[in-house]
Amino acid sequence: MADFAVLDPVTERVRQDFAALAEIRDPDTDGWTRTVFSEPYRASRDWVRRRMADAGLTVHADGAGNLVGVLPGRDPAAPALVTGSHTDTVAAGGRFDGVVGVLGSLEVVRQLAEHDLRLDRDLLVIDFLGEESNDYGLSCLGSRSLAGELTAEHLDRRDLHGVSLAERYRGFGLDPSEVLASAGRFARRGLHRYVELHIEQGPVLEDRGVSIGVVTAIAAIRRLVASFAGRPDHAGTRPMGDRADALVAAAEAVLAVRQEGCGAPVHGVATTSRIESEPGSPNVVPGLARMYAEMRSVDDGWLTEAQRRLAAEIGHRAADHGVTVDLTWSSDNERVSASPDVHEVIGRAADAVGVSWEPVPSGATHDAVHLARLCPMGMIFVPSRGGRSHCPDEWTDPADIAIGIRVHAATLLELDRLPDRAA
Amino acid sequence: MADFAVLDPVTERVRQDFAALAEIRDPDTDGWTRTVFSEPYRASRDWVRRRMADAGLTVHADGAGNLVGVLPGRDPAAPALVTGSHTDTVAAGGRFDGVVGVLGSLEVVRQLAEHDLRLDRDLLVIDFLGEESNDYGLSCLGSRSLAGELTAEHLDRRDLHGVSLAERYRGFGLDPSEVLASAGRFARRGLHRYVELHIEQGPVLEDRGVSIGVVTAIAAIRRLVASFAGRPDHAGTRPMGDRADALVAAAEAVLAVRQEGCGAPVHGVATTSRIESEPGSPNVVPGLARMYAEMRSVDDGWLTEAQRRLAAEIGHRAADHGVTVDLTWSSDNERVSASPDVHEVIGRAADAVGVSWEPVPSGATHDAVHLARLCPMGMIFVPSRGGRSHCPDEWTDPADIAIGIRVHAATLLELDRLPDRAA
Repeated sequence: MADFAVLDPVTERVRQDFAALAEIRDPDTDGWTRTVFSEPYRASRDWVRRRMADAGLTVHADGAGNLVGVLPGRDPAAPALVTGSHTDTVAAGGRFDGVVGVLGSLEVVRQLAEHDLRLDRDLLVIDFLGEESNDYGLSCLGSRSLAGELTAEHLDRRDLHGVSLAERYRGFGLDPSEVLASAGRFARRGLHRYVELHIEQGPVLEDRGVSIGVVTAIAAIRRLVASFAGRPDHAGTRPMGDRADALVAAAEAVLAVRQEGCGAPVHGVATTSRIESEPGSPNVVPGLARMYAEMRSVDDGWLTEAQRRLAAEIGHRAADHGVTVDLTWSSDNERVSASPDVHEVIGRAADAVGVSWEPVPSGATHDAVHLARLCPMGMIFVPSRGGRSHCPDEWTDPADIAIGIRVHAATLLELDRLPDRAA
Repeated sequence: MADFAVLDPVTERVRQDFAALAEIRDPDTDGWTRTVFSEPYRASRDWVRRRMADAGLTVHADGAGNLVGVLPGRDPAAPALVTGSHTDTVAAGGRFDGVVGVLGSLEVVRQLAEHDLRLDRDLLVIDFLGEESNDYGLSCLGSRSLAGELTAEHLDRRDLHGVSLAERYRGFGLDPSEVLASAGRFARRGLHRYVELHIEQGPVLEDRGVSIGVVTAIAAIRRLVASFAGRPDHAGTRPMGDRADALVAAAEAVLAVRQEGCGAPVHGVATTSRIESEPGSPNVVPGLARMYAEMRSVDDGWLTEAQRRLAAEIGHRAADHGVTVDLTWSSDNERVSASPDVHEVIGRAADAVGVSWEPVPSGATHDAVHLARLCPMGMIFVPSRGGRSHCPDEWTDPADIAIGIRVHAATLLELDRLPDRAA
């Protein structure tokens, strides 16, 4: 693959960037915490903005809260090549999720300059606002905005304290009407291809001893809120045989969710994250309970069947305990496939770099889901040690990150040369 | 039983008292809410104090926050007869739990005056401070203080907001050192017998068509906090077979608790009231979970065996999911028996009134548990409709309350005549 340019990242420079960004976090929470709209997140993005400028990018904040660094190409009229990821974290998260894609892209930009390589197209490196799921049950705020998928209804949503998403945007210095208008502006720019470098967040690459995962599709996510209504009673006096215990019904549902996940085809998962019960007093049989669960798969058919089976099973078990249940399903995102042409370029880039790769589905959602609405998309995965992610133990070896950056650079150079899409 | 004086309560007067007290509650919470130290509770006790004085009692607040109304007897040197209950509620509770014992005793006092009946002994009618379990995991604050069972360690406990119990006492106008000193003062008074009128809070009396329950014993309560430690992972990427999901282990434990309760001898119960999980984010497999449960029985042997079995079962099931568990048991109160002499007087009083009665154990705890440390104790139960309690649906028919007050009055008159206990 002699037509592929292979650039070597300066790993010490990348390592220092990771260390510097990791320092900017909520000091009162375990691990690395930069949740969207928080003070640590605001501070970290000032740092990202400076590092973008240091790398030679022309940086602007779009109306949706994304940081956009532009590396001008030879042809300003050509549709732009886009890459990026995010630098927010879950609470008590890790140092690599999202960060690899942002810092890795900056290293590519520096490498291009140092090798006097100029792209034909403008390259946009984007640090998307708030990719992780937030208090409003919404992930990918920034990329969702650019794809025109953030709505006024979303902005009206309120968190547990009654604060609307619109107010949170305002508190972060953003105008909600500008957030809604950002999609139109971005689409007018003309987009060529989107590629995102990211950690796998699962154990498959490590288990198989493979350096690079080329993403085939991103799993659909179905979320469930199940509300159980039983009857509150005195916990000391109500006989066991005459209870309608909402928390017992919720516990049964947690096990039903797990059972469904265990029966899923490869890469299908089902998880309960939280249960609330009321009144929660030690001496009262819980009369109300609520559970929060989700299922993910790249197999839409299985998801639909599993949703139906799970609804029936949760209902049956609740009825056995004299409890009624109300299920509310929502779709966080539908299954999104990577574009065959981008997929193929990434595979050839990995071959040119001389590392092993495999096609893999993504169980995690990414900003790429929303960019796929705007242009052909692909993703490059690097291994996660032990498959750990969304926790302080999240780790990817510097050598694996370096390989990822090399494949990313080769991919960007090759995508730059791909002809424009048919209009 | 011609030697029993039977007084007829004025049910309309009692009904008005119930209605007036029910008006004093937290307007922002469902049902009737007067939790200890709250503003509604403070307001309600001003009302109780006035009603005590209206009934002819000499009222004082002891150092422990109890309202004590004294009806002087012929012999001020004789050990006092004591009755009472509480007027605080659980959150979203009912109108009868505790209130029946306080308002019912005031009606007895009014009846005595109207019939020109004077007791030999001083009668103390006590509205005990905060009987319901609070944010510090402590029930029966006032009666616990008088029995010398409230300690400096209890006062140092902090709630979720970091506020100590001592600070809560101070905020309510009480001096913590006076609270601790109250037991000595009360014991010096000399106590004869304690009897408490209360709603059953369970369905047994109604189911059997019996008017009065004569309490044999009050159940022991063993409380459990189980802390589960698994491993947080990305909920979209961690295969089902490679998870250590702490919330799944907690759900298994909820079912194990219920199973143990269902196997209990009559009146044994086991209840889980709450589960917390961390981090609680929809896209993270919970790495930590905590569950709060309790078991109650008047059978200490069963409780000890059940505790052992449950610990083993919860541990086994958690291990099946790769989760470790740490169990912390505490005893809210040990089993307390009613005194045979008080029990016998109550039974004879019911016979004199001409109503049916049965001996029953109490699954709920009561101020009587702590008064039993100071003098012989007994309790009179009236039926609860549908056995409902600790909820807005809690209800006892006015006619049943009237019967309870008649039995209570006859009991107090007879207990007054019982000889002093041997010194």
